[in-house]
Amino acid sequence: MTDYQIDPSLQQSVPSAEERMEEAYGALVREREEGIAGYYNLPEDSRLVIDEVEAQAASTPEIQAADTIVVIGIGGSSLGAKALDQALRPLHAGAKRILFLENPDPLELQAKFARIDKSKSLFLVISKSGGTIETTSIFKAAIEHFGLEIDGADRKRVIVITDKDSILNRYADDHGLQSYLIPHNVGGRFSVLSAVGMVPLTLAGYDTRAILEGARKLVDDFFGRRADHLLRKGIFLAEHWERYRINVLFAYGSYLEDFTKWYVQLWGESLGKIDAEGKRVGLTPAGHIGSVDQHSFLQLIIEGPRDKSVTFLQIADFGEDLTIPRISLKHIEKNDYINGHSFAELLNAECDATRESIAGEGIPTDLIRMDRLDEAHLGELILYYELLTSIVGAALHIDTYNQPGVELGKKILVTKFQTKD
Amino acid sequence: MTDYQIDPSLQQSVPSAEERMEEAYGALVREREEGIAGYYNLPEDSRLVIDEVEAQAASTPEIQAADTIVVIGIGGSSLGAKALDQALRPLHAGAKRILFLENPDPLELQAKFARIDKSKSLFLVISKSGGTIETTSIFKAAIEHFGLEIDGADRKRVIVITDKDSILNRYADDHGLQSYLIPHNVGGRFSVLSAVGMVPLTLAGYDTRAILEGARKLVDDFFGRRADHLLRKGIFLAEHWERYRINVLFAYGSYLEDFTKWYVQLWGESLGKIDAEGKRVGLTPAGHIGSVDQHSFLQLIIEGPRDKSVTFLQIADFGEDLTIPRISLKHIEKNDYINGHSFAELLNAECDATRESIAGEGIPTDLIRMDRLDEAHLGELILYYELLTSIVGAALHIDTYNQPGVELGKKILVTKFQTKD
Repeated sequence: MTDYQIDPSLQQSVPSAEERMEEAYGALVREREEGIAGYYNLPEDSRLVIDEVEAQAASTPEIQAADTIVVIGIGGSSLGAKALDQALRPLHAGAKRILFLENPDPLELQAKFARIDKSKSLFLVISKSGGTIETTSIFKAAIEHFGLEIDGADRKRVIVITDKDSILNRYADDHGLQSYLIPHNVGGRFSVLSAVGMVPLTLAGYDTRAILEGARKLVDDFFGRRADHLLRKGIFLAEHWERYRINVLFAYGSYLEDFTKWYVQLWGESLGKIDAEGKRVGLTPAGHIGSVDQHSFLQLIIEGPRDKSVTFLQIADFGEDLTIPRISLKHIEKNDYINGHSFAELLNAECDATRESIAGEGIPTDLIRMDRLDEAHLGELILYYELLTSIVGAALHIDTYNQPGVELGKKILVTKFQTKD
Repeated sequence: MTDYQIDPSLQQSVPSAEERMEEAYGALVREREEGIAGYYNLPEDSRLVIDEVEAQAASTPEIQAADTIVVIGIGGSSLGAKALDQALRPLHAGAKRILFLENPDPLELQAKFARIDKSKSLFLVISKSGGTIETTSIFKAAIEHFGLEIDGADRKRVIVITDKDSILNRYADDHGLQSYLIPHNVGGRFSVLSAVGMVPLTLAGYDTRAILEGARKLVDDFFGRRADHLLRKGIFLAEHWERYRINVLFAYGSYLEDFTKWYVQLWGESLGKIDAEGKRVGLTPAGHIGSVDQHSFLQLIIEGPRDKSVTFLQIADFGEDLTIPRISLKHIEKNDYINGHSFAELLNAECDATRESIAGEGIPTDLIRMDRLDEAHLGELILYYELLTSIVGAALHIDTYNQPGVELGKKILVTKFQTKD
């Protein structure tokens, strides 16, 4: 179970809150019914993807023999699967390794190449448009470095995940590569529950059906009006965005770091937009990890400008805990109060104490408390943030699903090489 | 060499800019002369620390036999060394491993414990105050897990780094442990060039003297008025902080990620303050990695609210580059323009293109371009950000070096266990 607590500070007066909640709810219903955003249906539809992956695996010796899944993809094509892999791995010792080749950093790429044995690896090339320059470049480097015989012995090691009409899909068809499709109406940053996340995570051995099931439950709850806390929070954030323009996600657990990065992409790329009236709007996301960042970002939250809201993310049960021994260090006896307690208790008490100290200052806070870091809870968490993003976007009257701002840089990039050559 | 380029957008009118630059310069001179902030002297003074570490290593078989340096410390006690270790490691294959035990996450701690062989490890316990609850708790867990005989066979495996008057130093003295001191007037987040960073990095085998030398050069340049670009940038950021309240550090290189975290702590904890007149001020730092985060945060920068300034950090020469092969993928020929170029070229062209697209929008940008990721350049980079922080703090009339905002949470934490027991 996941518990959602919204502090009173996050329920400050929003003019016609109920009306705006209904409006946003209606917008999401429309998006779903009219197929404007396809992610709402992924918890149902992606079950077929998992079936297909399992069938492919059952008939492909290369897949059975693989101990490493190499994901070649960047941004929306990697962040989601990376987040789930990092969060799930500590309690899934048997999962196959997933290596993410994302950034075109030559040192990182060479270091990762050195850790890959082609004969035990699968290569997943993931790009919604099919033409992502980083992804195709890294794929080319992998072809050369590993001597991948796309049309021969290695054909079954290479799997493509892309849009049906993309140039990458045409490439896959021409070479007879297995491909999985990302629905047209699912954008990169909303795609983790599509083949983009489900294929690598299923191949690695995670219980991806449970991820979808956790997500489906929240979709049902939300559209069945049993999760109106999401509407309340979203309307608050949208209404006050010029005041609380930074939303901090303070996650207490080291293995949630990649999840905060996924959230930063989802939030930043969806909610930083020019609205219907030509006005620039946007909530800036900031991901932080407790308790480490209490020693970093907390001072700014407490004493700095009141331009932030803070969401705390907590794991009730870490599964394998560790006790702080009853050792008294001479002269440091003041810390003995923690002896005999566990690290999870310490971490969660730090979360609670920090939240209280922030809430006491009147800063809007809320808490997402997951029972466990498992597939179902993480699937729900993914959907929670996707729904919240859609709600805020609807309330801000922006197009949540496009990203026109990144196009100019891409065009300039091409010219740099054209003029050089 | 490091090149600092300030775009025209970052030199927009600041009332009495020259006067304010002189004022800030004067404030830093005073801080240095009166010993208010001690970090200015570390590039000179810490050379003695390195001498001492090398002498200790020469006479201590446990140190010579160690292949792993375990750092037990959090926040200012770990982020700086971690940043330098991550950035330097790719080109220093022979460096000893450094494992950072920071966060009290039970899963992470257990995973890291499993990777430690006591007989080949040194344990560095680092805390300025000596009473950091996470650090002493992890130290206790390490004592129990590894059966550390502090008063016996393992005495020389444990090294303490702390303030002279701290309770941890008294603990070290009582047990006859080797300890290194952090100067009174050097706070945690400004301490990386003190023993806090120099001891683990020297033990690991990095050329720490070169780090200090790179830093010393910038200190000399700054106080010799040969680096006024720092004053210009700092005054701009301070003057316009309510308009450009978020400073984004966009670092193009995967191994600069921990550096961005160090920057986030330095900036956030130093510059989020209540000023002399009781007003809340503060610049929010955001660390991002290119080109990954072009697929994430860029949209928000370009189309979202104009509340950000952006600093680009670029590495001219990656040392070991990798060429994008001249392979043409059928149907994806449009990307062939990059063939034959290197990944470093791609990455840096993306940096340039992104910067141009942002600067073209009138968003204040600047570029820090390092020739290489080596000790000297990183030492300079550390000092650059420390000086910039001091300048902005002086211009904002705040106490850059304290962190009163985090105390309440610590007090609440203790009560949680007192009432439970």
